[in-house]
Amino acid sequence: MGRAPDASRGLGWSVGADVGGTKILAGLVGPDGQIAHRHRAPVAQVGDPESVAGALLGCIDACRAQAPAPVGSVGVGIAGQVEPTTGLVHHAPNLRWRDYPLGARLSEALGVPVSVANDVRTIALGEWRYGAGVGCENMLSLVIGTGIGGGAVVDGRLLEGAGHAAGEIGHSTLVAGGRACHCPARGCFEAYVSGWAIAERLEEATRGSPALAAALRANASGPHGASSPFALERSAAAGSPEAKRFLAQLSAEFSSGVVGLVNAFNPERVVAGGKIVEGFPEFVDAAQEAVRRQCQPPAARAEVVRSRLQEDAGILGAALLARERATDGASR
Amino acid sequence: MGRAPDASRGLGWSVGADVGGTKILAGLVGPDGQIAHRHRAPVAQVGDPESVAGALLGCIDACRAQAPAPVGSVGVGIAGQVEPTTGLVHHAPNLRWRDYPLGARLSEALGVPVSVANDVRTIALGEWRYGAGVGCENMLSLVIGTGIGGGAVVDGRLLEGAGHAAGEIGHSTLVAGGRACHCPARGCFEAYVSGWAIAERLEEATRGSPALAAALRANASGPHGASSPFALERSAAAGSPEAKRFLAQLSAEFSSGVVGLVNAFNPERVVAGGKIVEGFPEFVDAAQEAVRRQCQPPAARAEVVRSRLQEDAGILGAALLARERATDGASR
Repeated sequence: MGRAPDASRGLGWSVGADVGGTKILAGLVGPDGQIAHRHRAPVAQVGDPESVAGALLGCIDACRAQAPAPVGSVGVGIAGQVEPTTGLVHHAPNLRWRDYPLGARLSEALGVPVSVANDVRTIALGEWRYGAGVGCENMLSLVIGTGIGGGAVVDGRLLEGAGHAAGEIGHSTLVAGGRACHCPARGCFEAYVSGWAIAERLEEATRGSPALAAALRANASGPHGASSPFALERSAAAGSPEAKRFLAQLSAEFSSGVVGLVNAFNPERVVAGGKIVEGFPEFVDAAQEAVRRQCQPPAARAEVVRSRLQEDAGILGAALLARERATDGASR
Repeated sequence: MGRAPDASRGLGWSVGADVGGTKILAGLVGPDGQIAHRHRAPVAQVGDPESVAGALLGCIDACRAQAPAPVGSVGVGIAGQVEPTTGLVHHAPNLRWRDYPLGARLSEALGVPVSVANDVRTIALGEWRYGAGVGCENMLSLVIGTGIGGGAVVDGRLLEGAGHAAGEIGHSTLVAGGRACHCPARGCFEAYVSGWAIAERLEEATRGSPALAAALRANASGPHGASSPFALERSAAAGSPEAKRFLAQLSAEFSSGVVGLVNAFNPERVVAGGKIVEGFPEFVDAAQEAVRRQCQPPAARAEVVRSRLQEDAGILGAALLARERATDGASR
């Protein structure tokens, strides 16, 4: 995993899948790295790993059925802490799993080598090899959705770290002693600009600002309540000064986090994706400007760009990981 | 640089040197990684690279004269931004150098391969191979003196990054939008717990607290003025509640920075050194406790320990770097 690209390795068809808290995405990936077929399913029963594994197997089989040649390997990215050599999912908070042997379950059912990894690592790998990170030897992947995940490519390798969690930049410090995070620490990057943090902060802010509360209520719609990032974006676009101030504060915090991470990891490129980044693309431009002006000289040349692959990054990265592991003989 | 250790490589005698803002340290390093002889000189003329290079050559020659066999390579760590393939020092703020070709100057004078690198990288390498990092595949080196420097070993490699600055954790963010740093950013780790930051903050704090000012004045001595970390330590030890509060705040900030970095880099061990860490060794214990309680599960097992080599880390790391580069044939 994470070695320099080598076109001669890992040829063949594979299936990559991405298991999130609400949905499963799978794709049949050809030798050229193109997704030839996609299949998706909802995660119906959070907390029941057997039923989710069954739905995942259904998606994988649907993709395999479309393959013009045998599928040699299967890769899965999942939002949780994974032991990569065995595919044991130690802990997947969004799915409410603990110590579920997903790798063993899948490889037994499928009869091909299966690789399982944390989803932010497969996303980083996909974006690096096929997306906005192509051509980089040093890349930071930042995914801001409900939480914040990340992965780091340094000197041509995707970092693993002692517990397979290097590059977990969502829990780098943004404000020492600051807001409580969902993890045991305070002041994490995630506790400020993730989806859950923005919602929480909007609720807090509206308590002190009737004008903000009114603007958000006026711009809430459908599934997006008054404390959603979407209501915030629409309120700002509609001219609410309070919403604009709130948004400027978020953007400054995002930039400050990116500046610190670019100094620490020294990437050529930061690839930012996830629904918060898609909702606030102007954050990316602001962070680019902050990196140029505020980073140390060897770091200030880093580009800050948006994800090119979005949902496909996880599928492609998982497929690539599976191929590489199968080719290395290091797969389970 | 930074590959996995290999006992068969780089045998022979070498000289390692560490060039700081005030002094030059050099050591003759044997095939066993022991320092057989040491030599030091002051940096008399900051801003005059030729005179400093002359003093450095004097130290290196004094070490060479003690060698029982020819010295095959020379390595130098310097507090500045260095192009490692040529040994060009782009910018060394403490020495007031710009674009000085130190590598070329030394190798011409010495007639052996010379490697030059940023000093925090040589310190990290020395501590990893010969000091408190021995046995780790994942280590974070943190040096807190006047400023804060760092280096990161991940998956058995010392990270380089796009501009040879990966692991520069002194300019990771500690407080978004916080105190102005000496770099163009605000709120850096260095802007809170480095030597210069502590002095600056003590001066600010005494303006609002006559009791703190009096305690510090009573505990200032010799070269250490009333706004020195040493006066702070002594004031706290003497029972000043204001000094104790200030120290507790610093310690909490240090811990918060370490927690975020351990989450982001996922090391097995953090090795902390430098005069601020030596002056406040209790910060290391507090950070260890914070890592255990506050880090993400895959990161919380990291140990936080003090440097074992102190000044020798830079000498040993520079010598090792020189040997490896000479053996790789990648030296200039």
